[in-house]
Amino acid sequence: MIYFDNAASGGYKPDCVKKAVMETLEYPANPGRSGHKAASAAAIKISQARDNAIDFFGCKNGNIIFTHNCTASLNYAIFGGLTMGHIVTTAFEHNSVLRPLHRLNLSGNITFTVVYPDLSGKIRAEAIINAIRKNTRMVIVNHISNVTGAKAPIEEIGEYTKRAGILLLVDAAQSAGHTKIDMQNTGINILAAAGHKGLAAPQGVGILALEKGINLQPIILGGTGTQSESPIQPDDLPESLESGTVSTPAIAGLNAGMSWIKEHFDDINYNIYNMTQYLYEEMIKIPQVIVYTPKGEFNGLVTFNINGLTSGETANLLNEKFDIYVRSGLHCAPLAHKFLGTQKHGAVRASLSYQNTFEEVLTFLRAIREILKNI
Amino acid sequence: MIYFDNAASGGYKPDCVKKAVMETLEYPANPGRSGHKAASAAAIKISQARDNAIDFFGCKNGNIIFTHNCTASLNYAIFGGLTMGHIVTTAFEHNSVLRPLHRLNLSGNITFTVVYPDLSGKIRAEAIINAIRKNTRMVIVNHISNVTGAKAPIEEIGEYTKRAGILLLVDAAQSAGHTKIDMQNTGINILAAAGHKGLAAPQGVGILALEKGINLQPIILGGTGTQSESPIQPDDLPESLESGTVSTPAIAGLNAGMSWIKEHFDDINYNIYNMTQYLYEEMIKIPQVIVYTPKGEFNGLVTFNINGLTSGETANLLNEKFDIYVRSGLHCAPLAHKFLGTQKHGAVRASLSYQNTFEEVLTFLRAIREILKNI
Repeated sequence: MIYFDNAASGGYKPDCVKKAVMETLEYPANPGRSGHKAASAAAIKISQARDNAIDFFGCKNGNIIFTHNCTASLNYAIFGGLTMGHIVTTAFEHNSVLRPLHRLNLSGNITFTVVYPDLSGKIRAEAIINAIRKNTRMVIVNHISNVTGAKAPIEEIGEYTKRAGILLLVDAAQSAGHTKIDMQNTGINILAAAGHKGLAAPQGVGILALEKGINLQPIILGGTGTQSESPIQPDDLPESLESGTVSTPAIAGLNAGMSWIKEHFDDINYNIYNMTQYLYEEMIKIPQVIVYTPKGEFNGLVTFNINGLTSGETANLLNEKFDIYVRSGLHCAPLAHKFLGTQKHGAVRASLSYQNTFEEVLTFLRAIREILKNI
Repeated sequence: MIYFDNAASGGYKPDCVKKAVMETLEYPANPGRSGHKAASAAAIKISQARDNAIDFFGCKNGNIIFTHNCTASLNYAIFGGLTMGHIVTTAFEHNSVLRPLHRLNLSGNITFTVVYPDLSGKIRAEAIINAIRKNTRMVIVNHISNVTGAKAPIEEIGEYTKRAGILLLVDAAQSAGHTKIDMQNTGINILAAAGHKGLAAPQGVGILALEKGINLQPIILGGTGTQSESPIQPDDLPESLESGTVSTPAIAGLNAGMSWIKEHFDDINYNIYNMTQYLYEEMIKIPQVIVYTPKGEFNGLVTFNINGLTSGETANLLNEKFDIYVRSGLHCAPLAHKFLGTQKHGAVRASLSYQNTFEEVLTFLRAIREILKNI
């Protein structure tokens, strides 16, 4: 089988990640609730993961919150009380941004503008800046589109928002682990990331990185292990945004995953770029194939359709006849498909990761040609 | 070491649970997002876990939602739009109930009455029923107190609320897996449970069981894998309440854990009851020890203080000198401690589980006597 669905869930977990998860099942104390040695050992694991994430994302002096997935991280960020006035966002956003914004808009809390990509399929910093109004308080940008793989110019956007005193929230679901992110140098105030995609962690952990000085109102209230006598949730970070027991196994796995990614980063980056580029260049040569990934945006994704087949049909053929696993449909990002004109039948997304090989890419291309023969 | 902190996190995970977790790390596809074989295999695992939970909790024809912990389950239930008018709850509730109710009360959405236990330390059904007003819409009851181990008479309460058309939400954080729960026969409309305590699952999964016909407004919005074109979250269950990627490893572990518990239920129940009873009866013989667990409530917890020591001091001595791990403080349940008169220095909680032994209980008792000698 060939797993080209890494943008949904990373298909390969390094041994160090599995080992880290298993260790937490041998001594599964609660990291935030008691003072004994087993609990302290668990707390130290969580604390090391936080330090690792701070370093990984350049979130110096800031706070790392562990959530259960990137969707939760984005919801915590958007419903946390800082999303006021007018918001600028992009057509590449996932429903985990669009649906919360829509709810805030319906309840009269905000208005928002959706910036579309240019004709080449890239979000331009100028387009974002042009959409900013006097009452714009936040810009929310998807770093690497989970539909086309196009990367947004967050450095340019961050430079502007920083000067303008506008908050920048970046959805790094697809980019974390695949491309370097330095919050401090880029002017990102809030970053949301998934553990189980580019960071090699198990499913069940998301990251919410907050620049120093940023705090959010929690949407989930409960035991924080602090100020237990108070009926009001204390606002200390990270506890205030981590009510209840955190997932020590997934967080320990994430910690090991981040260390592994750091160690192999250049190789990972090089492999993904080259495999994506090769796949892209071979795909655009095939006349019956429409490729939606913009040229040069070789970030692990090649999204396409085959003339005469719906995305679901192509994905099914790849699955059933060739044991090749990709994702079809709308990828929970409807406006990106509206832009591509694929809102009706979606598109096929082949998403690569560090564990994929050139051989797999060649097999994939052979499969596509095989399908074309039989249409 | 002796791990008597199972009420914070279950200290023992059966081999079948570890194996189930590991398997999901070998083929970690996303269960809800694609149609290929690896994704389908993951989806089947999740679906089996749902069926298992439906059977485990007698939630026939209802819905099982997987959250990330019991706190999230309770928040989803309380902030889901059904908590209106007047609410009756108890002094044994955790902050994951009290803080959400307090927030709803502050925003003018509800009023609520807290029912205290009788002098023996037990919540009485009559007390709950007496607190019910014309506009009472929901009763929220902690099944087994995480502070004293006292069990609430949910059958009697359920009988009343069912007839009266009042919703019953039960917090089964401490009871699930330790005592049988049958939602249908008990009249429980909504049940919240933790995976990592009595259900032998890893940390990172909570259960929210909804009786047929009950739906909640989601507080976290995002990708549901359904109706992706809509800016409004679809209200299909379970997807609507499970935005983003679920934690397949923790859910697979929970599935294995529930099966293991079912198979060994009578033994588990018998062991916990007998060990708790023995520990209780030996502890009440010691004059310098105050036991807060009510007589007969042998549900795994014995909570106490030693005269002249704060709960933290006792727990530290047990930890440092005897490698015995318990939890001191307020256990995130401040009103229970207010009732016990321990709101200042908390209490020491020894919480047992199926993997503990009588020998450990004897060692624990020797340690307590040793501490008393040296005060």
